[in-house]
Amino acid sequence: MKTVRDIGEDALIDRLIQLVPRDRSTAAGPGDDCAVIDPGPASSSLQLLKTDALVEKIHFLSDAPARKIGWKSVARVISDFAAMGGKPEHFLITLALPPTTPVSWIEDVYRGIGECLEKFGGVVAGGETSSVPDASAVVISIAATGRVERDQVVLRSTAKPGDAILVTGCLGGSIHGKHFDFTPRVEEAAWLVAHFKPTAMMDLSDGLAKDLNRLANASACGFQIDRAAVPRTTGCDLAQALGDGEDFELLFTIEPSKIDDLLAAWPGHFPDLSIVGKMVETSQGESLAGGWEHFNSLGIQTS
Amino acid sequence: MKTVRDIGEDALIDRLIQLVPRDRSTAAGPGDDCAVIDPGPASSSLQLLKTDALVEKIHFLSDAPARKIGWKSVARVISDFAAMGGKPEHFLITLALPPTTPVSWIEDVYRGIGECLEKFGGVVAGGETSSVPDASAVVISIAATGRVERDQVVLRSTAKPGDAILVTGCLGGSIHGKHFDFTPRVEEAAWLVAHFKPTAMMDLSDGLAKDLNRLANASACGFQIDRAAVPRTTGCDLAQALGDGEDFELLFTIEPSKIDDLLAAWPGHFPDLSIVGKMVETSQGESLAGGWEHFNSLGIQTS
Repeated sequence: MKTVRDIGEDALIDRLIQLVPRDRSTAAGPGDDCAVIDPGPASSSLQLLKTDALVEKIHFLSDAPARKIGWKSVARVISDFAAMGGKPEHFLITLALPPTTPVSWIEDVYRGIGECLEKFGGVVAGGETSSVPDASAVVISIAATGRVERDQVVLRSTAKPGDAILVTGCLGGSIHGKHFDFTPRVEEAAWLVAHFKPTAMMDLSDGLAKDLNRLANASACGFQIDRAAVPRTTGCDLAQALGDGEDFELLFTIEPSKIDDLLAAWPGHFPDLSIVGKMVETSQGESLAGGWEHFNSLGIQTS
Repeated sequence: MKTVRDIGEDALIDRLIQLVPRDRSTAAGPGDDCAVIDPGPASSSLQLLKTDALVEKIHFLSDAPARKIGWKSVARVISDFAAMGGKPEHFLITLALPPTTPVSWIEDVYRGIGECLEKFGGVVAGGETSSVPDASAVVISIAATGRVERDQVVLRSTAKPGDAILVTGCLGGSIHGKHFDFTPRVEEAAWLVAHFKPTAMMDLSDGLAKDLNRLANASACGFQIDRAAVPRTTGCDLAQALGDGEDFELLFTIEPSKIDDLLAAWPGHFPDLSIVGKMVETSQGESLAGGWEHFNSLGIQTS
């Protein structure tokens, strides 16, 4: 009998979405960073919807600081909104917990959530607590709405052959701390869509190798990567930069004619910008191995 | 150290929502069936937000039919939208699963989700799959948006002393099958808000004893209950009718002057309507014991 470990997350989602009614009118449905809902022509903005889960022993160790777990749980979602050019609005927090969980632990998770929302915007609209059996892992599931101006939305499916591929910041080694302390690139993404709107964009959650493949597949393109240009966190090799995941940097594509102006205008207090390759026709693309696979590499992703 | 079992779900949520930014402008925030978001005066409708989780060994047994689990997971949310006078729109489906879960099991969960959405409306806008450690329980977390016309929204916090208390259908014994096969009272609720708008309404998920207490507390009222009038499922005693939970019937209050007309007009194909008591001033209220407590009575809720 086939298990989810056998087929992996992306193939699983492809199969599942065939089984349910979907909104054919949405600009981006299952597969992009967020779902994009068009409220109708009277609205100058689009609604973004996102859900994201953190699981004990998969995404965080049981003795990790609860406040940082809370921060991370909503920062991941805010990063997804940013990657589409949008901002967070209303959050629903679901905690599935063993009944023996200390109240103080849960309160610290909520404090971390609160700190992140204070910093980047967004409010808690509701949520739920549910028990899990005593031996089960804690699951924190965050669902949220966001908003993006109609003319600022950026999908991952709209890159074109010839576009340059860029990333913000340094990649790899997130496991050594950044995965708990990252800054969602809200400010950088807002600046980009206002001044040099990318042709496609997403955030790097599962590693450049996996996520660039996703962006290319969604755009029906291939890519060529300049391995020497991939920005590595100090102490990380290329495999780590490509595969560790949880970088939460921006991956985006842009017309090559805009590159000089973009690099000249890129604000000095932003993380460095690196050109790591270019989009090509599918037939001319290469492939990149590595990246976080949720079901194949079951183990501790983070420390 | 205090655990969540010590303080219970309602008290826990009261503490947690103090720790995060909240939207003070919402008509109903944490505590009602759904959060109610006002998009602004230009919109004739309000957005509803809801999240709800089903946990293996808590809400369903490991060998329960996957299709019914899927149906139930979204039917519960649709029931919450109905209880506020609203209809479902976009769903986000989160599955946290051991990597050994058969793909066919997950597909059946999705088929059940699809069947329920086909019947009551709503589309899947996105979702996520995440692994949990092998020994951990499956968690299915559903988040959804809904919509309600501004003049049709019904909160649980707006009952008044003197209002009659009514329920639809029969209560108790859901564990023997109804919890998997219930019909969200979408049609009945829509009829009510159009013809005899309740002063307050909610759905019965944790049992009349617990849920009527919640409605009364939210409305700053007390209640007096006519125990003989509580409609019991065949074979159930009063304690079961009050405490089993998962009835997914409507609990609502209405001005006593409207009762005769309501009973005369109530469509014959709807489940029976029962007057089970009246709202009173807090000082004159009684109390009801029983009802499903998510953290104190950890065990199998459903079969």
